This record gives sequence, structure tokens and C-alpha cells, in this order.
Amino acid sequence: MTFLEKLNNIWKKNDSMVCVGLDPDLTKLPECLKSLEFPIFEFNKQIIDATHDLVCAYKPQSAYYAGQNADDQLKMTVDYIRENYPEIPVILDVKRGDIGSTAQMYALEAFERYQADSVTLNPYMGVDTLKPFLDHTDRGVIILCRTSNPSSCELQELVCDGKTVFEHVAVLARDKWNYNNNVLLVIGATFPEELGSIRRLCPEMPFLVPGVGAQGGDVKKVLENGTTADGFGLIINSSRGIIYADSTENFAQASREATMKLRNTINENK
Amino acid sequence: MTFLEKLNNIWKKNDSMVCVGLDPDLTKLPECLKSLEFPIFEFNKQIIDATHDLVCAYKPQSAYYAGQNADDQLKMTVDYIRENYPEIPVILDVKRGDIGSTAQMYALEAFERYQADSVTLNPYMGVDTLKPFLDHTDRGVIILCRTSNPSSCELQELVCDGKTVFEHVAVLARDKWNYNNNVLLVIGATFPEELGSIRRLCPEMPFLVPGVGAQGGDVKKVLENGTTADGFGLIINSSRGIIYADSTENFAQASREATMKLRNTINENK
Repeated sequence: MTFLEKLNNIWKKNDSMVCVGLDPDLTKLPECLKSLEFPIFEFNKQIIDATHDLVCAYKPQSAYYAGQNADDQLKMTVDYIRENYPEIPVILDVKRGDIGSTAQMYALEAFERYQADSVTLNPYMGVDTLKPFLDHTDRGVIILCRTSNPSSCELQELVCDGKTVFEHVAVLARDKWNYNNNVLLVIGATFPEELGSIRRLCPEMPFLVPGVGAQGGDVKKVLENGTTADGFGLIINSSRGIIYADSTENFAQASREATMKLRNTINENK
Repeated sequence: MTFLEKLNNIWKKNDSMVCVGLDPDLTKLPECLKSLEFPIFEFNKQIIDATHDLVCAYKPQSAYYAGQNADDQLKMTVDYIRENYPEIPVILDVKRGDIGSTAQMYALEAFERYQADSVTLNPYMGVDTLKPFLDHTDRGVIILCRTSNPSSCELQELVCDGKTVFEHVAVLARDKWNYNNNVLLVIGATFPEELGSIRRLCPEMPFLVPGVGAQGGDVKKVLENGTTADGFGLIINSSRGIIYADSTENFAQASREATMKLRNTINENK
């Protein structure tokens, strides 16, 4: 089954476009976990067990594992999802981008070492840096287009031949990079009108939408501008708003409640 | 000592602008190393010992370690350089780029976990994704500008307000991002004329220049277009041309000869 088939199935099965970002910061974990051998894995595991029927994807952010010397706990986390909830796709958020021979190694990292269903990539270096990932036809390749952060304007809003750089990315993704029908785009929830303009360029392509919750994106506007004809089409990520909903030993139940609240807000506004 | 001071010192001490890219592919290592417990580290170590008086930097490419489950051997490699050849700066080639809170974690990875002197970054998301690195005033921040690969044209050559996207990156790097005087740019050797145009925009900024050797860049043209007023200003990287100069047990001596040859070619054409 391809990533897109898996995504379509879970959107409908769980009636959810919520993606939980697994970005565990050791300094923010509940005290009750801090003395464990694998505190990050245990934190993730309890959140996964508490939310698996409410989400369409999990998205571990590579930096939190690389920066805290916890690559093993990233692997344990992805393995745990695959073994216990194989219907839920895993998006490894790495935002890689490098020349072809190097990108081959990064593709090994994402798809062999961690066995992720999908990966995020940076488009700045062009298609030959994407190809080693695109050629894995059963995996999803999610390319940065319009990112959620304030300074995304510096390059992404430059206008060339009547189109912004991020619109050029969307058109390249649609017309040139999607030859295996496995491309998605990242569009920040903090720019809902631009989400709408990219949706008009790419009517059927799924978008990963970070930036609701801690970054302030408006769910209602995201849905108005971003859903596809069938009412789905979005992977709406929340990390901090869900995983740090409570800092006590009740964190997992609180993450379930925060996930359910976001899912309901989305479904009421579709 | 800052990264730039360290770089200025070693350029002159070793009279060399050669950077050796440590991109070890397990399938290409000499047979004599393949049965060792840490074949990648041993390969790197012997190359480092054979070339340390001929180089201005070492640049391990993160993907080769991440893709081959060898993070520990990356750490051993950087530690080995720091302990034995502390005058030689280490550039960790990771090309990261992510929102501020995530970039903080990637900065931990590069500067604390691996204790690199310098790191490569992707500019697509703008300054708030660079800041956690820039704020390490003693470290170097090497930002992708005009990359060496064929498809770098797709986005980097788009023209906005009379300047290409890569020229916008150079101007942003010069005028906005370099507030701690620790920014460098990546300019591929495969585009020597564009290297010249960026040198005119940024007369004093050091450039990391990949793409000589296996990728076909012309050393003479790189020097004509890229050196600064003092005859230095470049970190000219070769990876495959040096580390795979010989596939037998003589690989280290061969890497020395290839490094010396590149250094001499550079110095004869300065």
C-alpha cells in the first residue's frame, strides 16, 4: 500500500486530519518519566497509545532525537507505531536536501533505518536532490513550500515572473516532481490565504499544515482555504499543544483530550 | 578563538585551501577495513593522519553516518580531529533548516553533541531558522547560496527584482544575517562565473566551494573568480576524489597524494 492510500484510509477510518508531532524535549517531560532508561520513548508511547484512534499520522521531528542523542528512541518510537498501529502513517520530519549521492544516504536513513512512511524535504537544491526519495514510489515525499515561521517571507515571498517563489515550488511539485504521484507540500497554517492560492494551483495534492496551536494558526481559516473536494486533503499538525497539554503524570490522558478537541474543531468547521 | 580566526590561521599555516570531505560509503571502503568494529572511523582516522598538514578543514557529511547507522563513528571522528589536530576546523555538513525551537535542537546536535566548529544550513525558511546557529558567535554558519548540482537552477536561478534567488541569499547573508560576523556561503565550483558575481557582492566573506573533482568543477576558474584580496577566502572541498583515490590498503597514502596534488594545483593558480 502506498503512503497516499494509507493516508486516505486513515483519514476516513479515524475521521481525523490531526497529526501529532512527536517533538519531545527532555527538559519538558513529566517528572515521573525523567528517571527512566528511555524517557523519550516512554513519553511517545503513552501519547501514541492515548491518541491512536484520533489521528491521521504521527510526525516525529528528527532534531529532538539528534540534538538529545536519542536516535535509538526515535527508532523505538517508529517501530512501536508500525508494530501496534500499522494503519497510521509515520512522517519523519527531517527537511533534508542535498546532492544526489548524499540524498541516497538520507533516503536510507528515512526509509530503511527508521522505516518511515514519508519524509519532509527542502526544495532549495531542486529535483536531483529529491529524486532518491521520489523513486520510493510507496513512500510520501512532503516538500516545503510556504513554511509557517515569520521569516519564511525572506525568500519564499520573492516574486519572479509574476509568481512567488513558494508558488513556483507548488507548480514544480505539480508539473515536474510528482511523476510517481507521491508528492505532498508543507503549507503553514499561519498563512491561510496563501494556503488557498496553493490549493487552487494543486486541487488534489495533500498538504501537511503545521502552525496551529503554539504558532497561532487559525483552524477555521485553514479548512476554508485548504480542504480538497472530499472534505479531506490536509494533515494538520500540532506538537506542543498536544504533547505538553499537561505536565503531570496525567499527560497522556491530557494529550488525548487535546487531540480530540482539535479533531472536533476541525470536523465542526469542515 | 572563533571559527573564522581558526580558518585564517590554518589557511596560512598549511598554505592550503583544501577541505577533505569525509563521506565514507561502507560499500566503497577498502576490504582490509570491512571486518573492523568501527570501519568508518578507522577509514577517516587514517585519511586524517595522512592529510592533516595539507588541509584547511575536514567536512564530514552527516548523511553518510545517519544513513549507515554510524552516528557514533561520526562522533569518534570529530573527537579524533579535535584531540589530535585542534588547529583544523571541522565543518559538519548537515544543511539543516527548521523553525526556531527545532533549530535550537539542531544547534545542540552540531555544536554540543558533535562539537563541530561550523555547520552548513539551508536558507529557504529565512533568518529565524538560522538564528540559533548564528548566536553561537564562535562557530561558523555556512549557508547554501548557489549549489553545485545540476538542478540547483530550478529555484536558485529564478530572477526577482533584477537579482537571482541565489544573489538575494548572498545580499541577505551580507546585510542581515551576518550580525555576528560568522556567516559563510556555499557556492558550487560548477558555476565559476556566478562564484565571481557573488564574490563582487561579498568581497570578504569566505566561501565553501564543493564540486571540484567528481562533480567536474574547474579549479583554475574557481580561483580566478573566487579568491579574496589576500589570495585566500575559499574552502575548496573534495570528497570522492581524495578519499577513494585508491581502494586498496594504500588508500591513506593515496589520499595524501590526491590532497597534495589538489593543494598544488590551487597554489599554482592563485
